[in-house]
Amino acid sequence: MSDLLSRIREISGPKGLITGEDVRARPADWMGQTRCSALAIVRPASTEELSGIMKVCHELGQPVVAAGGLTGLVQGTAASGDDIVISFERMTRIESIDPIGRTVTVQSGAPMQKVQEAAEGEGMMFAVDLGARGSATIGGNIATNAGGNQVIRYGMMREHVLGLEAVLADGTVVSSMNTLLKNNTGYDLKQLFIGSEGTLGIVTRAVLRLAPQPKSDNTAMVAVPDFAALKKFFQHVGHNLGGALTSFEVMWKEHYELVAVESGRHTPPLDPGEAFYVIVEATGNDAEFDTESFTRVLEQAVESELISDAAIASSKAQRDAIWNIREDIEALGKALMPAAVFDISLPIRDMETYVDRLRSSVHAMWEDEARLIVFGHLGDGNLHVIVAPRPWSDEARKQVEKMVYEPLAEIGGAVSAEHGIGLEKRDYLHLSRSPQEIALMRTLKATLDPKGILNPGKIFTI
Amino acid sequence: MSDLLSRIREISGPKGLITGEDVRARPADWMGQTRCSALAIVRPASTEELSGIMKVCHELGQPVVAAGGLTGLVQGTAASGDDIVISFERMTRIESIDPIGRTVTVQSGAPMQKVQEAAEGEGMMFAVDLGARGSATIGGNIATNAGGNQVIRYGMMREHVLGLEAVLADGTVVSSMNTLLKNNTGYDLKQLFIGSEGTLGIVTRAVLRLAPQPKSDNTAMVAVPDFAALKKFFQHVGHNLGGALTSFEVMWKEHYELVAVESGRHTPPLDPGEAFYVIVEATGNDAEFDTESFTRVLEQAVESELISDAAIASSKAQRDAIWNIREDIEALGKALMPAAVFDISLPIRDMETYVDRLRSSVHAMWEDEARLIVFGHLGDGNLHVIVAPRPWSDEARKQVEKMVYEPLAEIGGAVSAEHGIGLEKRDYLHLSRSPQEIALMRTLKATLDPKGILNPGKIFTI
Repeated sequence: MSDLLSRIREISGPKGLITGEDVRARPADWMGQTRCSALAIVRPASTEELSGIMKVCHELGQPVVAAGGLTGLVQGTAASGDDIVISFERMTRIESIDPIGRTVTVQSGAPMQKVQEAAEGEGMMFAVDLGARGSATIGGNIATNAGGNQVIRYGMMREHVLGLEAVLADGTVVSSMNTLLKNNTGYDLKQLFIGSEGTLGIVTRAVLRLAPQPKSDNTAMVAVPDFAALKKFFQHVGHNLGGALTSFEVMWKEHYELVAVESGRHTPPLDPGEAFYVIVEATGNDAEFDTESFTRVLEQAVESELISDAAIASSKAQRDAIWNIREDIEALGKALMPAAVFDISLPIRDMETYVDRLRSSVHAMWEDEARLIVFGHLGDGNLHVIVAPRPWSDEARKQVEKMVYEPLAEIGGAVSAEHGIGLEKRDYLHLSRSPQEIALMRTLKATLDPKGILNPGKIFTI
Repeated sequence: MSDLLSRIREISGPKGLITGEDVRARPADWMGQTRCSALAIVRPASTEELSGIMKVCHELGQPVVAAGGLTGLVQGTAASGDDIVISFERMTRIESIDPIGRTVTVQSGAPMQKVQEAAEGEGMMFAVDLGARGSATIGGNIATNAGGNQVIRYGMMREHVLGLEAVLADGTVVSSMNTLLKNNTGYDLKQLFIGSEGTLGIVTRAVLRLAPQPKSDNTAMVAVPDFAALKKFFQHVGHNLGGALTSFEVMWKEHYELVAVESGRHTPPLDPGEAFYVIVEATGNDAEFDTESFTRVLEQAVESELISDAAIASSKAQRDAIWNIREDIEALGKALMPAAVFDISLPIRDMETYVDRLRSSVHAMWEDEARLIVFGHLGDGNLHVIVAPRPWSDEARKQVEKMVYEPLAEIGGAVSAEHGIGLEKRDYLHLSRSPQEIALMRTLKATLDPKGILNPGKIFTI
């Protein structure tokens, strides 16, 4: 065993270090399609252990990749044979929960769903939610500034982190475990670690903000005839449901038809054939009143011909059935893989033109040999796009990437809305950020991680 | 004229530069109690001008203090005769407003109230609100991460900034004028400039997030017999009004009695004599239903003896009359000045003990020769404390500061909730932040402002 690994094992104990074939036996991605090829996997049991381990790595210039539930989609936790992976599987505790202060304190490896359930157990809600909730960890959610299904109302992960503890590249522990809603005592250091994909420090613990648990939820699948109507419908529900609007998830027709109908995995709540299908969800405090006003808002939309049909869930099973269509990533995978998967942001007013132009570009190159699927958190300006050209090749992927990303530069869109940059979008970062911004990012990186050992090569090259 | 000032005048034009007696004629604080003693006041008309000016200042090592509406309370914009003040009075434009994307784009010098009114004009709301709204500028709100009366529902300024443009110490313009709700393309650089009090860069423009305008508001002044009931009442309204609760402002009895009764400036909506007076406000989307449920929630609180009395505003005039008591800073000034004014954060569960202990300390030192006034955004864990010992002296102020700040360290409180650190709280920063945190702040400062010319001496010494 190398000097490095034996020194790490002294700190982590034998349970805290995995090497050789045991590393290869582990998956490197959520779907288990690749094997971990890291030099070793280190599993600290505490912040102090990680601090000691980072001191060794810093001294020896050893690169490390911190990983959570591996549910990322941009190769943000890719590790080569030169890298050590830091796993948080032994730091998954929910340390405390405060129903009056409305906070929960957790270790980095706690899965999102476990935190949601702990909050529910106290009559509260942890309001960040996404499909991978069972595997995604809080540390990963923080490092990637996770988004999800309720951003329109509750904001992204950044807005739910009150306090945070991180280990810097040199092993220094910076503990800012603030539990207060308001704290203007100097720089808000936690912001450095939220959304920086493990390149500036490694998050070990966090204090998260909880919200009151709503007492009602109303969910509908709605069919919309065209994009002009879709924009008006979004304004209509925004205006009439106001702060109660929790989700506004749109599926372009090809997505709805593929998942809800063709896949044979669901009972379609609405007939196919319309241009757009929208999941609208609102939550509130008064079951009877909220259901009445939700229904009235949808009825008004039908009367004004903004929508052509609506199926309102009248039970939890029906609500789940609606959401299962939106969250059925497996159905997409089966029908479309291999394919290029995107997560982009752009102003709602530009979406129709953008998608039409993308459809034309894809068609011009592959005619009917490519499928294009669009869906996403439209209310947040966030679309997910899948392009599956045939025959599939690395070159085809590159061509698709250019088609998707390049038009974003001129309309002020973002090449990543919620997934981050990782390795996968690194070459396109300049389309969304200026040379001055990227220079400042590099300056921060060089300051906090002068040896470049934290998640090397992610976001940008140094 | 010095080389420095003539080079600045070449960039700013004569209208952009104020020197000599014209500087002294200007106030250095909101109340106009002090005169500006800066070397000069520079009034750039554009980001480009400010960039050019900062290049000159950087070259010559000239310190600059960026100032907004001078409504800060911690000497965050104090400028000595060696400093140049940057004023944004020629950069006050609202550049554009987007009701579909729900954003407003402004220059730094735009006053908060002007932005609120522009949003209202489009049927939207800019949800950060505070008493100094007429003078406080957006740039100052950003630099100090302003809080105010609606944080419990809408969050602080940080959560309302989508995009930002700043000029760095060396004149580099970093423009991150993002208009998107979600943008995970690399580091979120704007966070560096929010709440860092002008020490890391100077904010010149911003994209702010707007919220739907509520269609109803309900406001009440409520009397509460003791702190145990106050905590239960807060939980009661949190649970039953949920996300509709917009303000929960508490006045300890001495505050209510001084402003509402003794000052003779108001018609008290409730009799004095109870332990606490609370302004509760909720907004929503349905005037009739919201008023009914607001009234019901207060009635339940009376029945459960959580509150002893409530006056619900039935007109805008009555609502204003209630808020005018809370916002009557002038009445406090007249009765209490000179005094030490504080803005602190602590967990709600610790507030009663904390205030009792403070009252004992003040009484032990000055017996009946000191007044203690407590009020604030209790729902946010944020209290404002005024202590007016007699005779007043610098030493008395120091003694009061220790009494207020030192107990916060052990309960995890913050020496600044929303006002910032400035010069005034610099000596107490270590009570709320660890040596590792302060060291990291210094590292950031040294990286972004190696010559230490941006708002020198504020937050910490370098």
